[in-house]
Amino acid sequence: MKNAKISNAVIKRLPRYRRYLIELRKKGVEKISSKEFSNLIGYTASQIRQDLNNFGGFGQQGYGYSVDGLYDEISAILGLDKEYRMVIMGAGNLGQAIAKYTHFHKQGFKVCGVFEISPNLIGKDLDGIEIMDYENIVEYVEEEEIDIGIICVNQNNAQEVADKLSFAGVKGIWNFAPTDIEVPKHVALENVHLSDSLHSLAYHMNDIQKKDQSKEKAKKEE
Amino acid sequence: MKNAKISNAVIKRLPRYRRYLIELRKKGVEKISSKEFSNLIGYTASQIRQDLNNFGGFGQQGYGYSVDGLYDEISAILGLDKEYRMVIMGAGNLGQAIAKYTHFHKQGFKVCGVFEISPNLIGKDLDGIEIMDYENIVEYVEEEEIDIGIICVNQNNAQEVADKLSFAGVKGIWNFAPTDIEVPKHVALENVHLSDSLHSLAYHMNDIQKKDQSKEKAKKEE
Repeated sequence: MKNAKISNAVIKRLPRYRRYLIELRKKGVEKISSKEFSNLIGYTASQIRQDLNNFGGFGQQGYGYSVDGLYDEISAILGLDKEYRMVIMGAGNLGQAIAKYTHFHKQGFKVCGVFEISPNLIGKDLDGIEIMDYENIVEYVEEEEIDIGIICVNQNNAQEVADKLSFAGVKGIWNFAPTDIEVPKHVALENVHLSDSLHSLAYHMNDIQKKDQSKEKAKKEE
Repeated sequence: MKNAKISNAVIKRLPRYRRYLIELRKKGVEKISSKEFSNLIGYTASQIRQDLNNFGGFGQQGYGYSVDGLYDEISAILGLDKEYRMVIMGAGNLGQAIAKYTHFHKQGFKVCGVFEISPNLIGKDLDGIEIMDYENIVEYVEEEEIDIGIICVNQNNAQEVADKLSFAGVKGIWNFAPTDIEVPKHVALENVHLSDSLHSLAYHMNDIQKKDQSKEKAKKEE
């Protein structure tokens, strides 16, 4: 693997390739050319070859890609060939939803515990996952060898919780709080800014509407 | 506004600018130079000037940006100066969480109804929002003038639900199903692929670890 310097854009596309490969496997497809893959996923064939070349290239001239082989390789590159242990910080609506969302578990990401400061919630059970006291988070991360902390607290507490998780030794933080947080260099960070996404949607809706209006105006003036 | 051709990258940054402007307003800051803004948000001052120039530029030489003015302008550009009416498709864990998440409502995005196919859920109440029969979605979107459909069904049903919403006349679709869907040109689409985000996180965690290991190896060999 020659993955010395792979752009973030390529990394972001890999999970998407993998999703399509899962579909192909389900359909019993064994091999696929970059052109067929292109028709399916929407990237150009040359983009696909270039992306996959970053990792040494798995295609064989005149044969295409082995679906199973490519799936395994991309899974390994993403680190999905092992299990990850996660904690959720905050047992509000979002924290509860993620705790109950079984899709991640099927993919090897296991929610081990949920942590809260609210005494009303501590001790309760979320589909078999215990809500524990935030006071005990550092101990828990160490003893249970937690890899990932998921931040579902409000934006005012997000940085403090991130600091605590980093101190406790998680390797990655998945941040859902609508704010930017800072983490030490040895901790990976991925943000899901739901509001930002919703605001982008609003922009595009208005943009489409404006374009339609100016088209109509142009028609009337003809 | 000269927003003829604004790159998606710029659009994606606008909600983030806006978030920081909200913080500045809370602190009572009235004006900010691109350099101060740069220290805060992490983009370079020249990037900030370039981004905001896309929209005509709001800064005054030697004065900087008016925080209130910039906030209002970005809000208007994003279309956040009005209210949006939304429906949630699917009352599973994710759909329920989004229905209960008050943060969006505060920002002018109102969840009006939740739609389901499961008879066990239809008729129930989610914090004051009714769960309705999927059969009635088209009528509801028309009568209630719904702007946005949020897809929280599983990946096998996502495209069908998107087709129905588009037919019913929503202007935008916010897709949480872990699959890619297609929409007509007049409908805006924004995806939140949570699994993709989690897989990127896994990649970055492993990448950091690999780099640490090769550093240690290099040290030992010295």
